[in-house]
Amino acid sequence: MKQVILNSYPQGEPQVSDFAVVEVAMPVVAEGEVLLETLWLSLDPLIRFALDPVTITGRAHVEPGEVIYGGAVARVVESRNSDFTVGDVVEGRTGWTEYAAVDPARVPLRKIDATRAPISTAVGVMGMPGQTAHACMIGIGRVKAGETVVISAAGGMVGSTAAQIGKILGARVVGIAGGADKCAALLELGLDACVNYKADDFAQQLAAACPEGIDVYVDNVGGAVTLTVLPLLKYGARMPVCGYIAYYGVGMEGPGPDHLPGFMRTIMSKGLEVRGFHGQMVGGQQALEDIAGWIRSGQLQHPEAVVDGIENAPQAFVGIFGNNPYIGKLLVRVAD
Amino acid sequence: MKQVILNSYPQGEPQVSDFAVVEVAMPVVAEGEVLLETLWLSLDPLIRFALDPVTITGRAHVEPGEVIYGGAVARVVESRNSDFTVGDVVEGRTGWTEYAAVDPARVPLRKIDATRAPISTAVGVMGMPGQTAHACMIGIGRVKAGETVVISAAGGMVGSTAAQIGKILGARVVGIAGGADKCAALLELGLDACVNYKADDFAQQLAAACPEGIDVYVDNVGGAVTLTVLPLLKYGARMPVCGYIAYYGVGMEGPGPDHLPGFMRTIMSKGLEVRGFHGQMVGGQQALEDIAGWIRSGQLQHPEAVVDGIENAPQAFVGIFGNNPYIGKLLVRVAD
Repeated sequence: MKQVILNSYPQGEPQVSDFAVVEVAMPVVAEGEVLLETLWLSLDPLIRFALDPVTITGRAHVEPGEVIYGGAVARVVESRNSDFTVGDVVEGRTGWTEYAAVDPARVPLRKIDATRAPISTAVGVMGMPGQTAHACMIGIGRVKAGETVVISAAGGMVGSTAAQIGKILGARVVGIAGGADKCAALLELGLDACVNYKADDFAQQLAAACPEGIDVYVDNVGGAVTLTVLPLLKYGARMPVCGYIAYYGVGMEGPGPDHLPGFMRTIMSKGLEVRGFHGQMVGGQQALEDIAGWIRSGQLQHPEAVVDGIENAPQAFVGIFGNNPYIGKLLVRVAD
Repeated sequence: MKQVILNSYPQGEPQVSDFAVVEVAMPVVAEGEVLLETLWLSLDPLIRFALDPVTITGRAHVEPGEVIYGGAVARVVESRNSDFTVGDVVEGRTGWTEYAAVDPARVPLRKIDATRAPISTAVGVMGMPGQTAHACMIGIGRVKAGETVVISAAGGMVGSTAAQIGKILGARVVGIAGGADKCAALLELGLDACVNYKADDFAQQLAAACPEGIDVYVDNVGGAVTLTVLPLLKYGARMPVCGYIAYYGVGMEGPGPDHLPGFMRTIMSKGLEVRGFHGQMVGGQQALEDIAGWIRSGQLQHPEAVVDGIENAPQAFVGIFGNNPYIGKLLVRVAD
């Protein structure tokens, strides 16, 4: 069977050469464990976190030579645990491997009802990313009808879901994405405007798209994009922090100048509310019920881009930080 | 009469030479205006904001040659406005001048009941700084009994008031201040611990004073002190941002490295709630009633340091950013 392991810690943006695809023997299933056959891998920017030599407390960490950490949907093919039966479909952070022997007491597994929604959505709109998008807009962002919401990395899974929830709530939703094609796809999802951050006049375009200022900024990127957004925030704006692609791999300190003084000054002068949060804890089961309802009523799309074969996971993952043309959820189909 | 004007924009920390004391003619009182005799000047770090060539939208701004902006308590000595009578005592941002002709429609004036509390407290514990401290701990900080609260610039007016409110709420309160004398004075106010940020082992001392981590960090300074506090914050910690002495005069960008990546990473990983706010709006009238009650019951001290003579205001103000030995409110007595 095949696995993808860490070859070397990425320097800044990950490269395909940071990964290696290896053939290994099938794992042996111990008492209490289940043998899982991976069906779908979830390619999330968050995985980048685990690939640093130094990580923040409580985060997963991968050493060179170890299997890449990440969410997956898998089928139980052998069970030595009375809570699981052969044929069960589960979701869990079981990593980039074709088969895994997992102790559910160490790696939590959530059983998926395959009759309710396509099983791949368990790591997307009907899972943690969907709950995160819901929390951004409702639990943390408290978006109200008529407000202006700006979402960075709007083409991503969380961003594109949050944007559509914003429209359902009656807000004006402005996306920020990299490239005209992504923006065109987002406008088709119903966004009011989408601005390409790679454009020379990005700041002017963004200001023009937000004539009344910004009430809520859902930040998935940080960096230069966020520094461009800050001057447009209204007094009392909310800023849910869902990610910061621009800083993955930077560690705690980036090259100067120091932008923290300006950020603190803006927080104080504009009475900002900046919030980190745990999407599953904030969104909870209610988020999944809301999202299932919006999908049924046709109000929420959940585009998926699918790459076939575990050996192609590194290339697809690297694209998240580069010029990935997809919007929505990026998945690797490992088996049917 | 005497005024203090801006001689030149301070570079970083203000110097006495950035100010000039000048003799000018008494102002002429126009219809609708009142003539105010300044009694007390309030020396707040916030004034530093107004002394930059570039200011954030909506903030006061002083050009070289203009009177220094700042809060004061004053007596009406002539009135051409039917809402004010000679002898009224008022509080407002009327600046560093012995006399001022003021249009209350342009510069809001709040009448002070001199029988209720010493009039100097109108720019201190019974005014905006008191409301800010109340908001830090209650409206924004939501401090609960048994939690650990850390307060930077704990010797300042806002810090020392917030610290005592923390004790009233039943929290463990740890102050951060510059110098053993300030720390000793703060321990006398009832704080559980006080750490001198100038000590070589500041980080170790702070960690030792917060064995269970930090639930609420009231930040009045930013900079290196705040970067030392961040690793000790617990998941879900609240961080009311009340000021950032370390960054006054820095503008939007300081010298590298860039600490914004680490701050964003901490916000996200620790689920932080970072809030700027307007103390008067959040604390409101309830804050003043609570504070008056705590003063009457002896639970809240409000130490004042008094400097005599408007000509000594620059030296006293400069001391706020240097080695000022005072704790509590710093006032200039201009007249009786």
